[in-house]
Formats: sequence, structure tokens, C-alpha cells
Amino acid sequence: MRVTNDRPVPVPGPGEVLIRVLAAGICGTDRHIYNWDESMRDMVRPPLVPGHEFCGEVAEVGRDVPASVAVGDYVSAEMHVVCGSCYQCRTGQGHTCHNTLIYGIHRDGAFAEYVRVPATNVIRLDRDRVPVSIGAFLDALGNAVHTVLRVPVAGKSVCITGYGPIGAMAAAVAHFCGAGRIHITDVNPYSLAKAREWKTRIEKARAGHPFVHIHDVGPATREEAIWRIQKENGDGVDVVLEMSGSPVAVNDALKVVRSGGDVVLLGLPRSSKMTLENYKGDLVMRGVTMHGIIGRRMYETWYRMLAMIEAGLDVSHVVTHEVPLSGFVEAMGSLNRGEGMKVVLYPGGK
Amino acid sequence: MRVTNDRPVPVPGPGEVLIRVLAAGICGTDRHIYNWDESMRDMVRPPLVPGHEFCGEVAEVGRDVPASVAVGDYVSAEMHVVCGSCYQCRTGQGHTCHNTLIYGIHRDGAFAEYVRVPATNVIRLDRDRVPVSIGAFLDALGNAVHTVLRVPVAGKSVCITGYGPIGAMAAAVAHFCGAGRIHITDVNPYSLAKAREWKTRIEKARAGHPFVHIHDVGPATREEAIWRIQKENGDGVDVVLEMSGSPVAVNDALKVVRSGGDVVLLGLPRSSKMTLENYKGDLVMRGVTMHGIIGRRMYETWYRMLAMIEAGLDVSHVVTHEVPLSGFVEAMGSLNRGEGMKVVLYPGGK
Amino acid sequence: MRVTNDRPVPVPGPGEVLIRVLAAGICGTDRHIYNWDESMRDMVRPPLVPGHEFCGEVAEVGRDVPASVAVGDYVSAEMHVVCGSCYQCRTGQGHTCHNTLIYGIHRDGAFAEYVRVPATNVIRLDRDRVPVSIGAFLDALGNAVHTVLRVPVAGKSVCITGYGPIGAMAAAVAHFCGAGRIHITDVNPYSLAKAREWKTRIEKARAGHPFVHIHDVGPATREEAIWRIQKENGDGVDVVLEMSGSPVAVNDALKVVRSGGDVVLLGLPRSSKMTLENYKGDLVMRGVTMHGIIGRRMYETWYRMLAMIEAGLDVSHVVTHEVPLSGFVEAMGSLNRGEGMKVVLYPGGK
Amino acid sequence: MRVTNDRPVPVPGPGEVLIRVLAAGICGTDRHIYNWDESMRDMVRPPLVPGHEFCGEVAEVGRDVPASVAVGDYVSAEMHVVCGSCYQCRTGQGHTCHNTLIYGIHRDGAFAEYVRVPATNVIRLDRDRVPVSIGAFLDALGNAVHTVLRVPVAGKSVCITGYGPIGAMAAAVAHFCGAGRIHITDVNPYSLAKAREWKTRIEKARAGHPFVHIHDVGPATREEAIWRIQKENGDGVDVVLEMSGSPVAVNDALKVVRSGGDVVLLGLPRSSKMTLENYKGDLVMRGVTMHGIIGRRMYETWYRMLAMIEAGLDVSHVVTHEVPLSGFVEAMGSLNRGEGMKVVLYPGGK
Repeated sequence: MRVTNDRPVPVPGPGEVLIRVLAAGICGTDRHIYNWDESMRDMVRPPLVPGHEFCGEVAEVGRDVPASVAVGDYVSAEMHVVCGSCYQCRTGQGHTCHNTLIYGIHRDGAFAEYVRVPATNVIRLDRDRVPVSIGAFLDALGNAVHTVLRVPVAGKSVCITGYGPIGAMAAAVAHFCGAGRIHITDVNPYSLAKAREWKTRIEKARAGHPFVHIHDVGPATREEAIWRIQKENGDGVDVVLEMSGSPVAVNDALKVVRSGGDVVLLGLPRSSKMTLENYKGDLVMRGVTMHGIIGRRMYETWYRMLAMIEAGLDVSHVVTHEVPLSGFVEAMGSLNRGEGMKVVLYPGGK
Repeated sequence: MRVTNDRPVPVPGPGEVLIRVLAAGICGTDRHIYNWDESMRDMVRPPLVPGHEFCGEVAEVGRDVPASVAVGDYVSAEMHVVCGSCYQCRTGQGHTCHNTLIYGIHRDGAFAEYVRVPATNVIRLDRDRVPVSIGAFLDALGNAVHTVLRVPVAGKSVCITGYGPIGAMAAAVAHFCGAGRIHITDVNPYSLAKAREWKTRIEKARAGHPFVHIHDVGPATREEAIWRIQKENGDGVDVVLEMSGSPVAVNDALKVVRSGGDVVLLGLPRSSKMTLENYKGDLVMRGVTMHGIIGRRMYETWYRMLAMIEAGLDVSHVVTHEVPLSGFVEAMGSLNRGEGMKVVLYPGGK
Repeated sequence: MRVTNDRPVPVPGPGEVLIRVLAAGICGTDRHIYNWDESMRDMVRPPLVPGHEFCGEVAEVGRDVPASVAVGDYVSAEMHVVCGSCYQCRTGQGHTCHNTLIYGIHRDGAFAEYVRVPATNVIRLDRDRVPVSIGAFLDALGNAVHTVLRVPVAGKSVCITGYGPIGAMAAAVAHFCGAGRIHITDVNPYSLAKAREWKTRIEKARAGHPFVHIHDVGPATREEAIWRIQKENGDGVDVVLEMSGSPVAVNDALKVVRSGGDVVLLGLPRSSKMTLENYKGDLVMRGVTMHGIIGRRMYETWYRMLAMIEAGLDVSHVVTHEVPLSGFVEAMGSLNRGEGMKVVLYPGGK
Repeated sequence: MRVTNDRPVPVPGPGEVLIRVLAAGICGTDRHIYNWDESMRDMVRPPLVPGHEFCGEVAEVGRDVPASVAVGDYVSAEMHVVCGSCYQCRTGQGHTCHNTLIYGIHRDGAFAEYVRVPATNVIRLDRDRVPVSIGAFLDALGNAVHTVLRVPVAGKSVCITGYGPIGAMAAAVAHFCGAGRIHITDVNPYSLAKAREWKTRIEKARAGHPFVHIHDVGPATREEAIWRIQKENGDGVDVVLEMSGSPVAVNDALKVVRSGGDVVLLGLPRSSKMTLENYKGDLVMRGVTMHGIIGRRMYETWYRMLAMIEAGLDVSHVVTHEVPLSGFVEAMGSLNRGEGMKVVLYPGGK
């Protein structure tokens, strides 16, 4: 497809805000759009400006925009635009609104100099606390925060399956939220190396014994890794955060969670279908709960996330590339080669 | 296998109680044992007295049994005997103890004149409130209560997939607990007929408009039935109680639950494996939660169940056969032919 | 004060709806306004049309009202109008918005032929399921539903302190939602008589043993009543619904709740101040939770309430007077004399 | 009273364990016993060995003690000994058992060379992770953990009223569990100084902006302090942890919590009575929840606490004195003069 940003600057309509983009993050979805993967072809109608993670400055406000949003404000935005009138929206579960439009997928997004969004979705940021390089991917960080907060993790053992960018953020958030022992599984050497780096740094800061365990679950070592994780609490960890979408990982999640524990599912598999190898024994008969996660709670997740950042949550280590918007194609190449975690684009230069 | 009850009367050891069985219910599991189904062969080591639903009178108490259990008491018992010292047992989740022994499967059970159980597991019943014919299957009713109480159903729309005995009880319990619209799906003409009987009676008692909907989800009508249920709240019901274990029903459950809703899973499929046709779209991307259910919460479920019975919960309509213990083989035949819901056996005659 | 309804018919502004009032209920608050009680003088600036419980037909819609509300619709409305942009509103707790305006207290309300409300707050009703005489007081019923649903009551013992109109509705809702034993306390002979009537009818419908217990907690019998309720579960009921606002009842609530139980507080005392006689022993050291309740969850409570009504929740017994709007002063007299529970006014005649 | 420890070494009965005390912490309750305060005279029957916070080594095990506890084990113990058979004990709320016996208050405790406790209550510790000086007061730390975990604090603003030893631990635990902004109030200069020390250290570790705020709520500055805290989220913090028992602080808690927020109550006032100055406006009409806290959840709190310690939770800063058991009287003097936070006693010398 042709992903475009050579559009005229949009004009904000009633209740809309025009934002000059300072920085934007590249998400896995953007990569699927860029690669024109089968999974995106039904959702995206080109030409489209992709990009749904960003921060910027309010450049212009349309009619009927409340005074709480003003020109010059430093902001991000929730890019899931919901209907506001369905059952879910009216009962505090708007993040599951089935009329959701995603800007950057169904409407023009943020890989551009300007982006237009509804004022309701704008989130004000504190310049002193949220650097532009972090504000650039709050949407993704919000996914991680939503996933981690689904079930309280304080003082619990946690396993994170998949250490891509959102997995890495989930690990940082779970640690910030008081998780006890943390297990991380992956098969990709790059991801495993990044996980080990983080482990070293985090454990040093706590000046303590090792409490983060990294497991290569490639064919040679998978069985032993699973066995090791199962030793927690007798038969597994309290909480699994499934961040990979890999069918192997989803099944491993059900193996390493303890009886009565929770598996939180954010990862999206390539195929819609998923075979659970031991639905009967692992899920039903062990009283396990599986939680599907979509988007961010509006706007609970945003408040929690910003409060954490302001109290020192550090996710700067997931940013591996910072490039001008013109570096987009090259950055996509790196990501497609499995090099790098989060790429931040700067439309106006860094 | 040889299912046996020609054993000497057991002698209660320290902390144990001997109970004279007044009545016992036949469960699906007993049928699988009787039929010597593949799924039971690993669990059961014959000879064994099956039966894990019953009520009776305390005939003898062993050493160290607390004064709260006395000879002559009218009682039932939780037949999942847990270790008391594992992580789950020590954190209020003993029903998921992975050292559980089930009396009637791993140890001799209640299809006999006498059964021996740990005093800790004995539940005292009120003779005036709990008839023997109901006390006979509190274990199964407890499964239904545990399933329904997993997620509050008051004022919510509920779909029950599978109207076998526990499905029928779940319907009655959900109704008792204030469910709004109730959908019931099944493919078996006998079950559908029983569901329609219940619907007629329940709606008449409320002197109101129809709020119970019975759906035949056989091939000819399944698609339309699903579409009708999906109209609730815009895209489905608040809560699905999956009572069948059928792979088709599990997938339907994910189709008819609303975005952000809950699917509670009690039904056990024949095979361990389960393919979710749209894991990505139905479960993860719609923010749905799936709750595996095992046994009864110890002893929360028992207290709730008995309080409901004492306030008038009526499940007498699930009892289709009441026979002496000697009628066991014949009763099994009826059940295997799909005739009947709950069979109550009376070891001492009715 | 002069409570007025001789106003010109209001004109709906942008996003507003004009509703022809079919019926409206008199709430305790209306009585306090009418009596010009000290507690209302700071809140109400006369002249004012009171009335915040009603149903009616949409007569006119203003600019920008979504198509989901149309002229002729049979509706009620949430009369707490919230800001939509504060922390509470943006995190699914709009019912606690501290910028709330209450129509009928801060703005003109429903004791009139027409009332004007924001379209966002309009709730469509089903003519076949919600009679006008019930639609007239959904705001009050919503308070009861919100109170009962704060903590699951299914299979639990419940004590309701105060059997005024909302207490009576709370009893009906708790029963509908599967409460086990229900205790009701009051000191007013009229209320106690109404409670006994309800008990008789409800127990008969369940064809069972008594499970509703009415307690006169006047000086002569209070001590024994409390002792009787405390026998539940060893030291009290699972849940107390405090509907009276009486300081004696609030303290009794803490006495009759079991250790680790819940006290849900809807009743408003005359004075702001409240002395808990045994804060240390009854609340902190017994691990009890006290839940303050305000308004109705927007709009979760409304969905639950309407689903219950559609499945047969019956609260028609709380309506003791149905009069034309012109009977307002006389009705207030009756209520002030403690005669009657819910008065329904019909602006256009019944 | 005469607090004694000149007793013969106790002999463990069936199911009991004898523990050689390595270290024990002095709790506020011990001080009240020592001072023979009015509040303790009904509970304590001298002579008594006080002390309910300790760690030690198993010296001897009685008959019927399970193999999971063995001579030589490094352990602590839950000193609330519950009946195991009441409603609360059988429904996972044993910490609110109304038959609780507290060792160190109702039975001999740990300020001695040896202490005898039921094997069920023994908690094994990891020598490599839990230093003796911390193992000495896990009971108190458990109170703090129970209080903090009552309501999830991750990404929320928290106010802690009272920075005595348990308040200080609650602050450390809330921080560990991902709290956002933390407010601490006290009136005692020593406590305020300790709070400021902690703030400095913690903020430095996060290399960030200030997120801990210390407020002197003495008469001169109280009003402004409250106003500052109320600015959070528009009208207050998400969660207040009331650790002081002071009537002024309890009322302040209701003032500084946001509408719809939570107040968790651990502090015990001197008097049983407590007057809430604005029960109506602050608690009921703002939809606030007050949670009484007693003891530690058995044994959920212990598992969470130990997992946190093993992942680096640091509370060593609350230990201000480490003395031999013979220094008991002198240490009490210091505490009575308001000097010091947690005193650790070493019966066998340090």
C-alpha cells in the first residue's frame, strides 16, 4: 500500500483539535500496515496516514472545544475514538465499544506534521515530567499498563511471555507495581539480551538477590524453563502476562500459571484461531482465568500511567531508535529485521 | 470396571466421620466411570465405591473430631479433600489445591450404605429446610452456585449453554440471583423440552412478559439463534455460563458474549484440546474474560447455597428419577439413553 | 419557600430535550424542600420547580441531539447532571462528580407539565414493561439498586435498617437478587406494618419457611432484636443496608454486621455529624467496610434496574398514593404525618 | 502490671512447635501493656509474657506436627490464633475470626527465650533473604501490607496519616507497590523528620521530580496542608491509609480523600468512640468507602509480604534500636518519650 503523509494540514471541525506532532512511536500494527500484511487489509483503506502513538502541541482548536484544551498545550491523545452511546460506553467500559474507530488505522493518524483528533480524547501532559521521547508512545505504554493492572501484581510472582517493546514495558510496569519474582520468556536472542540487560540494572538498584529470571524457551531449553517456572507456589506463577500472541506462548502461559491464577492476554496471534492443548486440564479444572485486553481504559489507564511516570516509572530503555520522520522507511527495515524495540519518529526533527 | 459397594462398613480414623447415606445423586462423572470411559481410566483405580453427591446421618465419629459434628446430625460433605498446607489452601483458594483427593474417584465414595469422610469436610444441614432428595446432590448444585456466583449476574443478561442437570440448576440459580434476560441453548430435544417447561413455570410466577428464551442450536437453527442472542446490549449478553463442554458451545459462548463480558466455564469436553475459532477477534480484541471453574469454594459456596435453599431456591425439577441403590444399573441405562436429568439413589430405600 | 411550577414551557437548547411529564414521584428530599428544612436552604435558590423522579414523553429535541432520542419516546432521565470532564467522570465514577447539578434541586425539575434535561441523561423505557406508575420513581429505585448492588448479596444474610420507601425498595431488590435471610428494622408502626405485609406475601410466593424477619427496634425491644440478628453466622449478617440516616441505626448497623462484613450507607442523617459509639471495636478491629452511596452509577445502575423490572422485579407495593399534580400540597401533608410511602403525581391527570 | 519472662521453657503439645526466639519487635500494643493503659486491662490477665512480633529457630516439634515444619527451620509465626471452624474461618476471612486468641496478649508471647505456637501458624523464612532484624517484626509489617493491599494503589495518589513505625512501613510498601504521588501527614517533629529523610532517599533513587510530600498538620499549618492535598484529582487523593488512630486524622482522612475514593483504617484510637464531623457530606454523599483492617490475611498477606521482601522491599530504616532482651525497660522508656520507631530485642544477644 501507499502510506501517505503528503496531505494538506487538516482543519479541526466542531469538537476537534489540531495537534502539531512532536514525536510519534512506531507500533507493531504500523509495521503490519507497512508490510501490507493480510491481517490489515480488511481494516485499512488507503491512502492513509498511519501512526497512533504520539505527543505534540495543540495548534488549533475547533468550535465547541472545552476550555480545558488550549493552543500551546503539550498533549497526547487516546486514538481509539468511541461512540459514547453504546452499552459499553455508558457503563464505564468504553475501551470495548464495538463502534470504535482507530485513528491511524481507520482515519488519518500521527505520522505527519499535524494530526486532528476529537477534543474528548486529548490528554494533557506535564512538560517537566514526560519527555517528548516517552510521550511519543504512551498508547503502547498504556497497553502495558492496562495489561498489568488487570489483576493486582503486588507481591505476586509474574511471568511475561514475550519481551518485545510492549513486553519490556509490561515488565517495567509490573516491577514498578510491586511484583515479586518476575519470569520473562522469549526465543529471540535480541529480546533475550535486552531482557538480561534490564534484569542486571533492576536487580542492582535493589541491591538484592536475583528476583528476575530470563528464560530462553527455544526448543532446546523450553521444557526445563517451564518446569522451573512451575516451581513457584507449588505449581506456577500467580499471574502470566501474555504479550507475544504466539500459540506456543499462549499454551505455555496455561502451563506455568498456578491453579487459580490469572493469564492476561494482550498479544495478537497472526491467525484468528488458537488451539488450547489442554483446555480441560489447564484452564477449567485448575480454575484459571483468562483476561482478554484491548486498548486502554478510558481514561483510567491514562491517569494511572501518568501518575506512574511522574513518580519515576522508567521505560526509556525500550527506545532504541530516534529518527526524523523521513527515516521512516529505513526504520521499518530495521524493525523488520528484528533489530530494535521502539522507534521514535520526529516530524519536526529531534 | 467393577464398581463396587460390597465392602465392610468403614471405621472412622482420627478426624474422620462415618455417615449413613440417606440419598446420593448420580453425576455425569459417575456415568463416565460406569462406562469406563477413556477420560476416567487414569484417575480411577478399581475396585472403587463411586458417588460424591450425597446426604446422610452421622453414624460414628473418630478420635479428635470437634464437637461441632455429632452422631445423629443430618449432613452432607464436600468430597474434594484438600491438603490444607499448599499455597492455594493457605490463601483461601483451596478449591484449586493441586493435591486434591476426590472421594468417589480417588477414594471410596457414597454409593453405599456408609461413607467415611474427614470431619473438616462435613456440612450440617437443616432437616426442615433441605429435603433428603435435594441434600442428595448438593455437590452438583454447588458446582452450579460456584459458576453463577463467579461474576455477579443481578440485572444482567445471561446465556446458559447446555441444559443438562447442572445447566438446569445454573439457570435456576441465576434466576434466583436476579438475572435479567436468560437465554438457554441446547441441541438435545429432551433438554430443550425440560428448559421450556421451566421457562413456562418461572415466567408465570413473575406474571410478566417473557424473559427466558430457549434456543435450539442444532445445525438448522443455530445461526439465527446466535444472531438473536447477540442483539442483547448491542453485541451480546453480559455473562455466558458454559455448562456443556461441547467445543461448538465454547465457541458459541465467545460469539454471544458482549464485548467486555464474561464467559464462565464449567463444562468439561471429552478431549483435553479445544480450538477457539476466533481467539484473536472474540477473546482478546473484545476484552472478554474466561473463567475456569472447578469444584466449590470451601466453604463459601456451601454457605451461599444453603442460604439460597433456605430462602426458597427450588431445584426439585431436576430430579427425574428416585430409586433404591439396587436400581443403579437401570438408572445408568436411562441416563446413557439421554432420558432423565438427576437420578437420586436411596441406599436404605426411599 | 415558594415551590413553583407556573413557569413558561422551557425551550430545549443545544443537546437538550423537552419532556412532557406523565408521572413524577415525591422523594424525601422534596419534602425537605417543601418544609424548607435547614438542610436544604443552602442548596436550593427559590423560585424552583422541584421533582427529580419522573417519566414522560419526549415533546421536543434541541439542536445536536443524537438520533437515539426522538419525539414521542417514552423516557425517564438521570437528574444528576455531571460535568463529564473531571477525574471522576473520566474514570467511570461520574456519579461522584463534584460538579454535579441536580435537576429539581439546583435547576428546575419535574413537578410540572414539562421538564428540560440534557439528552445525554435521557433513558428510554419500554412501554410494555415499565408502567407509568413505576417509571415515575426510577431515580429512587435506582438509589435502592445502587445500594444493593454495591456488594453482592446472593446467598448472603442481609439487614435493612429503615423501611421507608427506599428501604422497602431495597428489600425488594435484595430479595430479587438472591439474598438469603433478610432482616428489616424500623421503629415506625406504619413502616413495620408495611414490612410485615411484604414479608407475608414474599414468603408465600416461595412456599417456604420464614426467611424475612421484621424487628421493631424501639426502646422496649431493640436490645433483643439486635441480639437476634447477631446470631446470623455467629456474629452478624453479611451485609447491612442502612437506609434511614438515623444515628441509632448507623450504630446498630455496626453492631449487627458480622466481622469482615459490609455496611452500605444510603440514609442521610439530619445533622452532618455522626458519632460512632464503637469505631475501634466494631469497625476497625472487626475488619468491617462502610460504603457511602450517592446517586446511581451512570448508567450501569439504570441498565441493571431496567433489566430487573423487565424480568419481573415488583415494587408496585411502595406506591401508596396516586394523585394529580394539583394534589401536591395534600400529599405532602400525608407524608409529613408519616402516612404513605411513595406518592406518584400525574401532571396531566392519571 | 508485671510483665514476665521468668517462666520455665514451655513444652510443645500436639500440633505445637517450640521456637527459640532470635529477635522480637516491640509494638505499640506492647507499650500499652507495659504502661498498663486502660485499654489493655480487659484483655490481658497477668502474669503474661508479651511480644507478638518475632523470628526464631524451631527448637522442638510436638506430636502431629506436619513434616513441613522441622527442627532448625528459620521461622516467624502469625500470632493471631483462630478457631478454624467459624463462618469467617471457613470462608477465607479467618483474620476476622471472633474467637481469635492473640499470643502475646491472651497467651504467652515472644519476649522470651522460647515461645510456643501452633504449627499451623508457623511461617518459614529464607535466611538469605530475610535478615533477623527484619524477621523480628513481620507481624507489624504484615499490618502495613494488609492495609496497603486492601485497595490497589498502583498509579494512584495516596495519603498516609501518621508516620509512626507502621505508617512508615505503609509508606514504603505503598511506594513499592507503585503508588503515584504520596502525601504523609503527622504532627510529631521526630516523625516528620523521619518522613523527610525517607522522602529524600526515595526521590533520589528515582532520580526524578518530587513525588513525596510531607505535611505538618499541627494547628498552624493544618488547614493549608489539607487544602494542598485536596488539589489532587480535583478534590483529593485516591486512597488514604489512616495509621494514627487520631480522631483529627480520621476526620482529615475523609476531607482529603477524593469523591468515590477509599479510606483504609488501621489506626486504633484511645477511645472506642469516634465522631465523624461530616459523615453526611464527606462519607455518604461523596460515595467514599471506609475499610477497617485487622491483623493479616491468613496467609495471603504473609505470602505477599515475603515476596516483596525477596524482591527488595526495604524497611530497615524503621529499626531505630537493637538491644538485648535485658534492654527492654530502657527501650520502653525511649519509646514512651517518643524517641525511636521500631525497637528490636535480641533474647540471645545480637
